[in-house]
Amino acid sequence: MTTWDSLYARRASRMRASEIRELLKLLDQPDVISFAGGIPDPELFPSEAFKNAYADILGGPEAAKALQYGVSEGSLRLRRWIAGHMRGLGIDCGPENILVTSGSQQALDYIGKLFLSAEDTALVQWPTYLGALQAFNAYEPRFERLDPGANRPAVDCEAKAHDAGGRVKFAYLSPDFANPTGLTLDLEERRRILSLAGELSCAVVEDAPYQCLRYEGDPVRPLLALDCETSGAIENTRTLYCGSFSKSLSPGLRLGWVCAASEVISRLVLIKQASDLNTPVLNQEAMARVAEEHFETHVAKTKAVYKARRDAMLMALEKHMPAGTRWTKPEGGMFIWVELPDGIDAAELLATSVEAARVAFVPGRAFHPDDSGANTLRLSFSCADVGKIEAGIARLGKVIARTVTSAL
Amino acid sequence: MTTWDSLYARRASRMRASEIRELLKLLDQPDVISFAGGIPDPELFPSEAFKNAYADILGGPEAAKALQYGVSEGSLRLRRWIAGHMRGLGIDCGPENILVTSGSQQALDYIGKLFLSAEDTALVQWPTYLGALQAFNAYEPRFERLDPGANRPAVDCEAKAHDAGGRVKFAYLSPDFANPTGLTLDLEERRRILSLAGELSCAVVEDAPYQCLRYEGDPVRPLLALDCETSGAIENTRTLYCGSFSKSLSPGLRLGWVCAASEVISRLVLIKQASDLNTPVLNQEAMARVAEEHFETHVAKTKAVYKARRDAMLMALEKHMPAGTRWTKPEGGMFIWVELPDGIDAAELLATSVEAARVAFVPGRAFHPDDSGANTLRLSFSCADVGKIEAGIARLGKVIARTVTSAL
Repeated sequence: MTTWDSLYARRASRMRASEIRELLKLLDQPDVISFAGGIPDPELFPSEAFKNAYADILGGPEAAKALQYGVSEGSLRLRRWIAGHMRGLGIDCGPENILVTSGSQQALDYIGKLFLSAEDTALVQWPTYLGALQAFNAYEPRFERLDPGANRPAVDCEAKAHDAGGRVKFAYLSPDFANPTGLTLDLEERRRILSLAGELSCAVVEDAPYQCLRYEGDPVRPLLALDCETSGAIENTRTLYCGSFSKSLSPGLRLGWVCAASEVISRLVLIKQASDLNTPVLNQEAMARVAEEHFETHVAKTKAVYKARRDAMLMALEKHMPAGTRWTKPEGGMFIWVELPDGIDAAELLATSVEAARVAFVPGRAFHPDDSGANTLRLSFSCADVGKIEAGIARLGKVIARTVTSAL
Repeated sequence: MTTWDSLYARRASRMRASEIRELLKLLDQPDVISFAGGIPDPELFPSEAFKNAYADILGGPEAAKALQYGVSEGSLRLRRWIAGHMRGLGIDCGPENILVTSGSQQALDYIGKLFLSAEDTALVQWPTYLGALQAFNAYEPRFERLDPGANRPAVDCEAKAHDAGGRVKFAYLSPDFANPTGLTLDLEERRRILSLAGELSCAVVEDAPYQCLRYEGDPVRPLLALDCETSGAIENTRTLYCGSFSKSLSPGLRLGWVCAASEVISRLVLIKQASDLNTPVLNQEAMARVAEEHFETHVAKTKAVYKARRDAMLMALEKHMPAGTRWTKPEGGMFIWVELPDGIDAAELLATSVEAARVAFVPGRAFHPDDSGANTLRLSFSCADVGKIEAGIARLGKVIARTVTSAL
């Protein structure tokens, strides 16, 4: 019998199953109200538009091309649409600044692969998107805390990274309605991160999958747009912007992108070539058609639904949460972050909550590289209707109240 | 301006553009007869079947599910079909032994990621599939030559790997109609590799994208089938079999698979989860439908076409190649491997050939990890019809004859 463990690379010891994805498998029971999965509501997908796009491509003269291998950088038609979308966000760029990826998760994997040697440092927020930690973990970096609210001296990060045997390669952050906190960085915080990255001569990874899902307030300019402004042109910037169609049109086609200086894009193209050759052309051509025709109207429709759910969840939290429980008020996205009174363990709470109240959420510890955050949890409002949100939060409030009381 | 080079990981220095894929971009000229691209003939894709499959899924009750995130191991329906296909090859397995990947290229990337630490050794054939070298390169291994025809003492490989600071993690090979040589390993050679791997306690990576394209002779049992037989059950084996739909039904959906012991599959699933979450469900569901209905008949049709092209190319080589030039006689697949007289550089020949004769091929050096093989080249017969093959090889024969003469 093969002793597999002895054959694995060192990095394999850092690969663990996502608590969230394992959870999702268990929650497929009709009587559980789940605020756990950070996924879009499938009822909202523009299935009809996709059906027509696939029929159009596969029934037309482009069928053979769509079923063949394609170029690693991505289909020109889709890259053109994405470049136009990015220009709409204040980033002057062309298709040469775009790499199409299999979801923005793949972009994070490739960015880790391109930049991180073992013992290098990645600056990340605490808590942060779990999938980013998982993607970067394969390249064995250290994680150091990035706090956009504080004026941290660069020299301190630099020294620590150097002592650990590497250097700071990038600052990773999700500036709009972040997963898991729902928080948005203001202009000053964004400028502070760019300035810190400048002092450290490192890159910035701007993960923006929720960017288009804003329900109130004015959009804040992307870090890449600010970077373009300061440095004069995209070719002079240090920011890699990761976008995604997963939260706007459909996650099922697995389509995302990186927008950055063409020099770094061309390196990422080499990585793409060696890792899966190319993202399916058929899906890219279908997405290009659907995005060209439906992006604006579909996103508007989606936002109206999610806004109502966010409002319902905020109202229900206000009504049903016991004293000492705090939560964020996201201006967009899919998530509300809850802080329980100290001493309450959200993972233990989940077991009680699913069993006694049939309500699910994600305990917050997994989002912290240092295993802190035991008293935090993530609620997603994207997949439950307003009625279920009110009922579910009421039930959750009772469970929390009981837990707090018995902990006293 | 950002100094990107100073930020890249050490592995980035090993990432180079594929000579072949760069070539392909230049060869899109109507008067060039290309034997360069190792890609299937797009005229043969079952577009109608795919059109119906996509319409069926997107017009039916499964649309929303197909457009949503999916499980990292792959859709159950497709894994069931694949497991059945593998059982047909003599490998007793179930869906738990299958990971669906974005083409078998992604399987190679994940296998490199799971097994290779820097300075570990991968045994590979010389020449070998360039894409495998590119995929593994990201994990900074050494390559050591694997010669299935020789009884090499394991202790020698082991000592060299150890001296280099790692160990032998796997033997990689493509046993059927290999890219680039077209050669097939016989039963004795396969058993020899399994036995070597046993002595080294390492894994075996069986890359079998062309397996179903046999035009003559009896199929040779896959290494995984032999391994199952010797070790009693798939759960006791050391072989990871990489399959692909790219050469049978379509490369455009980017669908391949790994078949192996469930213990190692579960590790690869974690890698998939962290690197791109999942392969598009929509494509997997479409492929399952097309494979269930059309695999056998479509592969039979494809084989008839490619067989005629292989026969035409072998006949044309016999007729037009000057003395001193040798080539393989593949029993299947897409490639014939040509050895030119010593001293002739195939890369230089390519320039002359494209310019003077409008015929293209791939110079063989890139397939050798040690940059040897300057006098070799790869011809692909999959994409040219019989008339073009005869005309192209006639033209190529003249160019080679002239080059040989002028080198004397």
